[in-house]
Amino acid sequence: MAENIGAAARAMFNFGLTDLRLVNPRDGWPNENVVTMDAGALAKMPPVSVFDTLEEAAANLNFIAATSARPRDMVVPVFTPQSAVTECRKRFNEKQKIGFVFGRERTGLTNDDISLCHAIVTIPANPAFSSLNLAQSVLLMAYEWLKSDDKTPKKTIDPGGRFPAEHKKLDEFLSRLEKELETHHFFRTQEITPTMKRNIRNMFTRNDLTDQEVRTLHGVISALTGKKNA
Amino acid sequence: MAENIGAAARAMFNFGLTDLRLVNPRDGWPNENVVTMDAGALAKMPPVSVFDTLEEAAANLNFIAATSARPRDMVVPVFTPQSAVTECRKRFNEKQKIGFVFGRERTGLTNDDISLCHAIVTIPANPAFSSLNLAQSVLLMAYEWLKSDDKTPKKTIDPGGRFPAEHKKLDEFLSRLEKELETHHFFRTQEITPTMKRNIRNMFTRNDLTDQEVRTLHGVISALTGKKNA
Repeated sequence: MAENIGAAARAMFNFGLTDLRLVNPRDGWPNENVVTMDAGALAKMPPVSVFDTLEEAAANLNFIAATSARPRDMVVPVFTPQSAVTECRKRFNEKQKIGFVFGRERTGLTNDDISLCHAIVTIPANPAFSSLNLAQSVLLMAYEWLKSDDKTPKKTIDPGGRFPAEHKKLDEFLSRLEKELETHHFFRTQEITPTMKRNIRNMFTRNDLTDQEVRTLHGVISALTGKKNA
Repeated sequence: MAENIGAAARAMFNFGLTDLRLVNPRDGWPNENVVTMDAGALAKMPPVSVFDTLEEAAANLNFIAATSARPRDMVVPVFTPQSAVTECRKRFNEKQKIGFVFGRERTGLTNDDISLCHAIVTIPANPAFSSLNLAQSVLLMAYEWLKSDDKTPKKTIDPGGRFPAEHKKLDEFLSRLEKELETHHFFRTQEITPTMKRNIRNMFTRNDLTDQEVRTLHGVISALTGKKNA
């Protein structure tokens, strides 16, 4: 279906893949209906190539992975998406040409199709509702492919263009807060005071506050106490 | 859009998530148009809940992660999808209630929305074409969530219900093949014979052949030589 091709092209290009090869597309090619689903991807990608058979489409590939349920009556290595892509990325870095094969929307790949693939990729899913559409499968494989070479740190604290506060600025604020709390009889007993002070300091310190935020907190104290900034 | 809600519900349920909470849906709820995109998921899931505000939808959650580009002018930890889900799964295993927040299709989340979230998740994508639709974002997060507790082995060789050949069966075949190759003057020189035999043995041995496949290969030799099976 042309709509599926459009959605699949969008999913590919979202994650940087551009070599789309169609085998015997049902609605012919080119087809106007792709534009309802490709979100402009095809216009930015190199031209799609069209083949009569999977053998021809895969002719220059060195390693071919098919997204499919486990085939019956065939012996073939079955990978998770992430481990398949790890294998493919290793081969890609050795200049091998890699192909991912996806079947027709309803009928999937035949055993004949699979017999020319080196690996099967089975996407783990809810056993009670495991049917993914074509573009979803393409999206997940393309996403894993981009991830396999992605250098984004796992976690970053983005200070929104501002700079984390110097410790002495934070300490000035915390000392001021403690003084005001003493003035307002916040600490009920002598014994508990050091622990409470430590807990309050920790609450603010672990937060990676910026300069700007420390100034805001000074303003909060000024407002609550009716006193100007220290 | 009701169609987006249907597609998002399908993506959630594909990966086993069932607690869908809508905030002020544009087309109202319930809505007939979901059925064009949910592929039957909503009928199998617990009822969707609807809230007027994100605050109410998130009221009983302990940790809230928003899928969004990095917000401007705010300090918030930014995770990759996989690392966010690792953090969420750890908390989930401690009985915390986790929420993933997704914005409107075009306008996304506001800074006010994000200010009540503990973490931002930014999906890595092609910088020249990074716009994912709502259901695609839901699909990727739900997929990562299922993966974070998925025990599927990274790679398995599925013998299709059959059993790998015993070594002696394979050896019988390889010895027969070598004998026939000698008979047919395949090995041109004495010096090269051991290497060629080793290479041929390796080619078949590394393949994890099944009993059935070894029998097939015997049939191949019989056919090519015109002699019955050994």
